Amino acid sequence: MKRLIVASTSTVHGSGYLEYILPELSTFFKSVNTIVFIPYARPSGISYDVYTAKAKEAFEKIGIVVKGIHEFDNPVDAVKKAEGIFTGGGNTFELVNQLYKNDVIHPLKEAVENGTPYLGTSAGSNICGVTMMNTNDMPIVYPPSFDTMGLIPFNINAHYLDPDPTSKHMGETRETRIKEYHVFNETPVLGLREGSWLQVTDNQILLKGEYTARLFRKDAVAIELDTDTVIKQETLI
Amino acid sequence: MKRLIVASTSTVHGSGYLEYILPELSTFFKSVNTIVFIPYARPSGISYDVYTAKAKEAFEKIGIVVKGIHEFDNPVDAVKKAEGIFTGGGNTFELVNQLYKNDVIHPLKEAVENGTPYLGTSAGSNICGVTMMNTNDMPIVYPPSFDTMGLIPFNINAHYLDPDPTSKHMGETRETRIKEYHVFNETPVLGLREGSWLQVTDNQILLKGEYTARLFRKDAVAIELDTDTVIKQETLI
Repeated sequence: MKRLIVASTSTVHGSGYLEYILPELSTFFKSVNTIVFIPYARPSGISYDVYTAKAKEAFEKIGIVVKGIHEFDNPVDAVKKAEGIFTGGGNTFELVNQLYKNDVIHPLKEAVENGTPYLGTSAGSNICGVTMMNTNDMPIVYPPSFDTMGLIPFNINAHYLDPDPTSKHMGETRETRIKEYHVFNETPVLGLREGSWLQVTDNQILLKGEYTARLFRKDAVAIELDTDTVIKQETLI
Repeated sequence: MKRLIVASTSTVHGSGYLEYILPELSTFFKSVNTIVFIPYARPSGISYDVYTAKAKEAFEKIGIVVKGIHEFDNPVDAVKKAEGIFTGGGNTFELVNQLYKNDVIHPLKEAVENGTPYLGTSAGSNICGVTMMNTNDMPIVYPPSFDTMGLIPFNINAHYLDPDPTSKHMGETRETRIKEYHVFNETPVLGLREGSWLQVTDNQILLKGEYTARLFRKDAVAIELDTDTVIKQETLI
């Protein structure tokens, strides 16, 4: 049975790393002693070791041991044998690039489809979608493909931000960017606000956290989904 | 002699399309009667025709006729024979994608190097850099490469935004994104604020407009360059 938590962010304003979601993670990973951490997204360019130490510190609080995928001789084996997997945020282009370079992307998808519980935050959530085309990140490396795992039947826009009506900045709003995406693509996009997450249990996708989420579909008006809503196939059409 | 205007934005807040820069364009294009417009970036997904009409309307005010590259039978010929060229903003991924698909990117670079005056705004400015890796746009299509024209020896971050110290949003600031870029890349990046532009005359690059610009180099502290500064090779090291 597929089990995922797909979170908009690792950290909400004024709170520690993963702090807001730790109670949820404690339940989600209750039968898990050790997690394999994928630090490939390197937020602010920090090293795999420094990033893994950060994840370790957070999971220690709920009695779970974290080991970085780079600490294993074989990253594919690490993913295949993992009890649980966590992919952290950072730069989605570099994350996807390394998942392909290390031949991990398909084994990772298989492991999660076969029931290994998976947590993604930010970039680690983007890769659960069909493609990474709705990332907010800068294209600092050229990955071999934008295709990601397709563990959910839509894409994620993490850290979703509403337009600021007082802004004098002429750059595109998030909504405009996603509308441009739908000129060229069909796959729906879910804008997940910071503090929201999806709980995926087999094919049931439940929106959790404090906020509504904004669903964008091609040639349709965007809609707000309430928290605790199950996102059904017919909602996506 | 190479001649370019590389502008952060087409439009500043509270003003019409190209309005703030029209006096400058009138001088820059003084010996030009007709401009070829490249509408490939399709802001908000508008059609080539609609986008070209917008450029036409602006250039009419300074007595210049605009024709869209898509109105020519052969886009490569259009670029080679152009008296002047303007590439508008929108989505940089789609712009670069179409420049490659239509085999226009190399002829465009050659035309500008051979002296065809060139105006870029936003995405149209990003492609003057070495790569498009410092775009703010969403990767809504997968271009065959991130390499762009290298008409200037650094990359552009258009619509540069300073960090907002009051923000509670946890997404990366522009500065953080550019710092992440420099973990993986060497090429300097110039953050051009809205209302600023570069005037390139052969190998002299002059910063113009109201604002300072922020220069990011690998392993160095970012610096502000004053308007009316000539950006010299030694500044970039």
